[in-house]
Amino acid sequence: MTIHKLAPLPEQYSYVFGGRDPLVSIRPGDIVEVSTEDCFGGRVTSPTDRPSEVVPFAELNPVSGPINVEGAEPGDMLAVHFVSIVPANPYAISCTFPSFGALTGTHETAMLTPDLEERVWFYDIDLDSWTATFRATKSDFTLAMPLDPMHGTVGVAPASGEVRLVVTPSNHGGNMDTPEARAGTTLYLPVNVAGAMLSLGDGHARQGEGEVCGTGLESAMNSVIAVDLIKGGASGWPRLESDDFLMTTGSARPLEDAFRISQKELVLWASDLTGLDTLDAYQLVSQLGLAPAANVCDPNYTMVAKLPKWAVKDAAAYGGVHSRLRASAAEYLAAR
Amino acid sequence: MTIHKLAPLPEQYSYVFGGRDPLVSIRPGDIVEVSTEDCFGGRVTSPTDRPSEVVPFAELNPVSGPINVEGAEPGDMLAVHFVSIVPANPYAISCTFPSFGALTGTHETAMLTPDLEERVWFYDIDLDSWTATFRATKSDFTLAMPLDPMHGTVGVAPASGEVRLVVTPSNHGGNMDTPEARAGTTLYLPVNVAGAMLSLGDGHARQGEGEVCGTGLESAMNSVIAVDLIKGGASGWPRLESDDFLMTTGSARPLEDAFRISQKELVLWASDLTGLDTLDAYQLVSQLGLAPAANVCDPNYTMVAKLPKWAVKDAAAYGGVHSRLRASAAEYLAAR
Amino acid sequence: MTIHKLAPLPEQYSYVFGGRDPLVSIRPGDIVEVSTEDCFGGRVTSPTDRPSEVVPFAELNPVSGPINVEGAEPGDMLAVHFVSIVPANPYAISCTFPSFGALTGTHETAMLTPDLEERVWFYDIDLDSWTATFRATKSDFTLAMPLDPMHGTVGVAPASGEVRLVVTPSNHGGNMDTPEARAGTTLYLPVNVAGAMLSLGDGHARQGEGEVCGTGLESAMNSVIAVDLIKGGASGWPRLESDDFLMTTGSARPLEDAFRISQKELVLWASDLTGLDTLDAYQLVSQLGLAPAANVCDPNYTMVAKLPKWAVKDAAAYGGVHSRLRASAAEYLAAR
Amino acid sequence: MTIHKLAPLPEQYSYVFGGRDPLVSIRPGDIVEVSTEDCFGGRVTSPTDRPSEVVPFAELNPVSGPINVEGAEPGDMLAVHFVSIVPANPYAISCTFPSFGALTGTHETAMLTPDLEERVWFYDIDLDSWTATFRATKSDFTLAMPLDPMHGTVGVAPASGEVRLVVTPSNHGGNMDTPEARAGTTLYLPVNVAGAMLSLGDGHARQGEGEVCGTGLESAMNSVIAVDLIKGGASGWPRLESDDFLMTTGSARPLEDAFRISQKELVLWASDLTGLDTLDAYQLVSQLGLAPAANVCDPNYTMVAKLPKWAVKDAAAYGGVHSRLRASAAEYLAAR
Repeated sequence: MTIHKLAPLPEQYSYVFGGRDPLVSIRPGDIVEVSTEDCFGGRVTSPTDRPSEVVPFAELNPVSGPINVEGAEPGDMLAVHFVSIVPANPYAISCTFPSFGALTGTHETAMLTPDLEERVWFYDIDLDSWTATFRATKSDFTLAMPLDPMHGTVGVAPASGEVRLVVTPSNHGGNMDTPEARAGTTLYLPVNVAGAMLSLGDGHARQGEGEVCGTGLESAMNSVIAVDLIKGGASGWPRLESDDFLMTTGSARPLEDAFRISQKELVLWASDLTGLDTLDAYQLVSQLGLAPAANVCDPNYTMVAKLPKWAVKDAAAYGGVHSRLRASAAEYLAAR
Repeated sequence: MTIHKLAPLPEQYSYVFGGRDPLVSIRPGDIVEVSTEDCFGGRVTSPTDRPSEVVPFAELNPVSGPINVEGAEPGDMLAVHFVSIVPANPYAISCTFPSFGALTGTHETAMLTPDLEERVWFYDIDLDSWTATFRATKSDFTLAMPLDPMHGTVGVAPASGEVRLVVTPSNHGGNMDTPEARAGTTLYLPVNVAGAMLSLGDGHARQGEGEVCGTGLESAMNSVIAVDLIKGGASGWPRLESDDFLMTTGSARPLEDAFRISQKELVLWASDLTGLDTLDAYQLVSQLGLAPAANVCDPNYTMVAKLPKWAVKDAAAYGGVHSRLRASAAEYLAAR
Repeated sequence: MTIHKLAPLPEQYSYVFGGRDPLVSIRPGDIVEVSTEDCFGGRVTSPTDRPSEVVPFAELNPVSGPINVEGAEPGDMLAVHFVSIVPANPYAISCTFPSFGALTGTHETAMLTPDLEERVWFYDIDLDSWTATFRATKSDFTLAMPLDPMHGTVGVAPASGEVRLVVTPSNHGGNMDTPEARAGTTLYLPVNVAGAMLSLGDGHARQGEGEVCGTGLESAMNSVIAVDLIKGGASGWPRLESDDFLMTTGSARPLEDAFRISQKELVLWASDLTGLDTLDAYQLVSQLGLAPAANVCDPNYTMVAKLPKWAVKDAAAYGGVHSRLRASAAEYLAAR
Repeated sequence: MTIHKLAPLPEQYSYVFGGRDPLVSIRPGDIVEVSTEDCFGGRVTSPTDRPSEVVPFAELNPVSGPINVEGAEPGDMLAVHFVSIVPANPYAISCTFPSFGALTGTHETAMLTPDLEERVWFYDIDLDSWTATFRATKSDFTLAMPLDPMHGTVGVAPASGEVRLVVTPSNHGGNMDTPEARAGTTLYLPVNVAGAMLSLGDGHARQGEGEVCGTGLESAMNSVIAVDLIKGGASGWPRLESDDFLMTTGSARPLEDAFRISQKELVLWASDLTGLDTLDAYQLVSQLGLAPAANVCDPNYTMVAKLPKWAVKDAAAYGGVHSRLRASAAEYLAAR
């Protein structure tokens, strides 16, 4: 088990997927200890900092990477297992941001109404109690809530030479902002370029489904990932696997198209794993699937489709890579 | 506790919300034992029956009702607690239906491509094991799955004299097709006309989130509901409450508008229950909310927004009516 | 040529399509002189009247009708030729309206931002110069613009016993708000109930495509229509025909679905008139079609698809009914 | 008047906006004679060639460029006047393409239904009669239609270091596919990088509004453009100006968002040119604007909003640059 460390210097952070030289090169089966900045690049340091003023738009959401995965080629599927995701600071930050979020006019849903007020919330993070504490800004309401750390942004270089801003999720991954990208889960990303060029960032100490205000509990993270490669296994869109669920994603607008993509991918995956014909698999997914929103605020919206593994009789996806990475993660954590 | 029985004769079923005389009249606090037909009006009796041929389009989804609730007036909120929902037949039926479902062209998402094949699945319903058994049509795959009975269609007469086909969900309720409408849950419906004129039907022995193929495990039901009235409590859209969650709904197209409605309603509800200002409540919902699809196939799509009750410190919604109906249901069930 | 007069009393106006008794009964080929109120029911009488305060929501958009057309049956197509549409008052009124219009949050596109200011514009109508004069409210800019009178709302009783508020356009017609519904044009409406039950209203002295602020130059009208019937000719959606164009409509959300419906209808119509196979007709429409927005503000959005008649080699639609109605209109106008 | 020639070699064509070195460098006021390939890169040479087989997806829609415009900087507006656009071949090609077009399932509007048949149409182009002739594939219907040549794809390098596939229209221009980009019109593009890096291609001998089947009359072109620079004049989105109309564009999904963007831009532009306050300008655009679809098939849909210049009392946009470029074009054409 080879363990790499990726702790980018401030000037090494990337704001795009694609077109960048790798910061580190690894082999399938390796583990990477990676530190990531919060989505503000660490520039919001008090509730009176206005994110839209202290962070240039094109420097939102820095990612750590790219990581070159040796042997990865277009047509392969990259498996990224989240071994652990731990908030790096004693606080996390959330905010409303001008022209961003689901319940305000945006650059796309263009309106003549004024923007919502820009407001910042600082949460206390306590790793011992594994909680974040919300403090209302206009009353004395406070609430402790469990941490559920995740990475909002994980992706590879896009196909066809495209370079995409980190904020846009698409079939290369990116800013999907799903709470399902938590420790214990494996994210599958179709490879578009030699080396895959994996980057990640945008840690959230937790996030509701849909990310309706546009931000989660934004937090720098100390994370550990285990990476593997499924030769020739590329799907059309990113997928996830937990111990209990197979999950597919779709990122598009309008939201029903994100839903359609994720559901079609789940039907195809269930069909592959069970030998069911397409309509039989469509039927199975229709009755047993879950369909939570991931984000309804980013330049593409993301929906997740979930099927419990018992629905496919626990068929091993991708030759059981999730179980192997689970074991590898356990070994790493035991040795630490 | 007054108990009513509503078992419509075939010619008494309704296919619309609004404009119909009540079949029964009850008082707030009463219980109704109601039988409902399946969405095919019982006309699909074997897997070789094609629903599009044996059921006229305007006779899909019969509902039982309307039920006149004495004293209900526009501006009130009706509380409909599902005491029990039990499949009435030893089978349930699902199908693909021409120009219906999320992964095919429809009357609205008009295409030049041909329709998907119309296919029917019969499930075995076993109340003892509380399971439904799926049988693939093109292979010998079978799977038993837990029942989770619900009513897809529950609503009241619309405002402004409108009469709407049962298949369309909107702010009067209707065909919301959310699996959250299960036993133990209270559905809140804003009252638009004197007497509210409640109807329900479209039982599903279970259904996945999004109802992607367009149908659940369609089943006639023997159901029991407890009905109460919250004077002056009308919200803009139907809401639900379970023991653990506050839930709001939005039914619209595109799907992001259904999401927006449901999320805004949840923000307003959380604000009401906690005294949080709107943006503080927006923040709370953003971090703690769940956002599952209900249906992405009906003439309006439905999204549900859910907030765990601990997030509002277990504040009692509508004066605790859900708890009272819960108790009333327990009393009824104990006496049976 | 039988000429009827329909001048409803205030209490006779209707606010719905469907479920109403006819005010007048006519035969195919007859002419109706009909007066219609403005969308505010005449209650906005000065720029300081706020429409949202002086008009109850359910009393917006009164229509004159229904008109019973003898012999009309489901499956037939009604042909409504606009002989003339003349503003009845020396002024027309436009406004912004709370939660209405394309560039503000609405009941469906729910937002937490405040509404746009409600503001009213009175235009001077001059029938001699055939102009309306705009006066800015915050500067001394004025502009005379040509009249182009039309009816925003024209429709028949919906299918399946539905009763729909006048503001919603759908396949029964309704509030399509297309500037194409002008004098000289024939509107085709599929018949859903015996007698068709035609109503019309919502005159605009003119209107831009898309009706982006939510209102046109709202004006009471003195109009004349010539009505005919095409037995068995029902299409799926309303169509229009002018001397130069065949036009189809689609009313749905999102806007691309309205576009899809209108385009598919135009492909099918072009195929019917030319004998072209579906893909050949799709090709023809793709290269020669126009695709203006009608409204992007109503509960369903409406798109229009237009094909110049020379593209179908001037094939006579519906047996040349438009030409016959044109001639009938000329005769009526000459005799007046 | 400096005249440049840009005739790329096959290996010099570009398939992206951004990230490429310029092929030529010009100064504001210069003219460029540019040849462009058809969207198939010239590889479809007979109706039996299937585009999806003979053209790799990432090599669809080659563009000529980039052209470096000296002195152009972020915040400036580039003015690209189409002096002439002339089909280079005696034929133009249209087709249906798998998973592309508005009336079929696509990669985003994912369906389980099969694709439409892939079919190719060759049109005869006759520059003398200025017509293209359609020949049906399944009957003997033929039709001559006027040429109306345009460039579907014109854009500059995107902001923030993004590199975008040519097929996607956005605020950098790109594949907007509007028939308004014809000779005699000036296209305004906001500059994102030093030198602007203008590219163009995807000529259509003509195209219907909405490009519903996904392709126009695809044609290599011999075009001439006159380029100028408006220092500090950047708008949010591409705009166009003809002798009669001011036009704005929005490219997004769903289609109503493309509409919203284009309309808001037109309101802001009208306000700038007249001094009208925002709501007065909103009112003016609502009554006088046109709103045709450009494309409803590309990864973003494009809507155009048009205002007749008399509505702003012929105020000269951008200091009258369109008139100057018109004059410069006339001079060039006279001298040729």
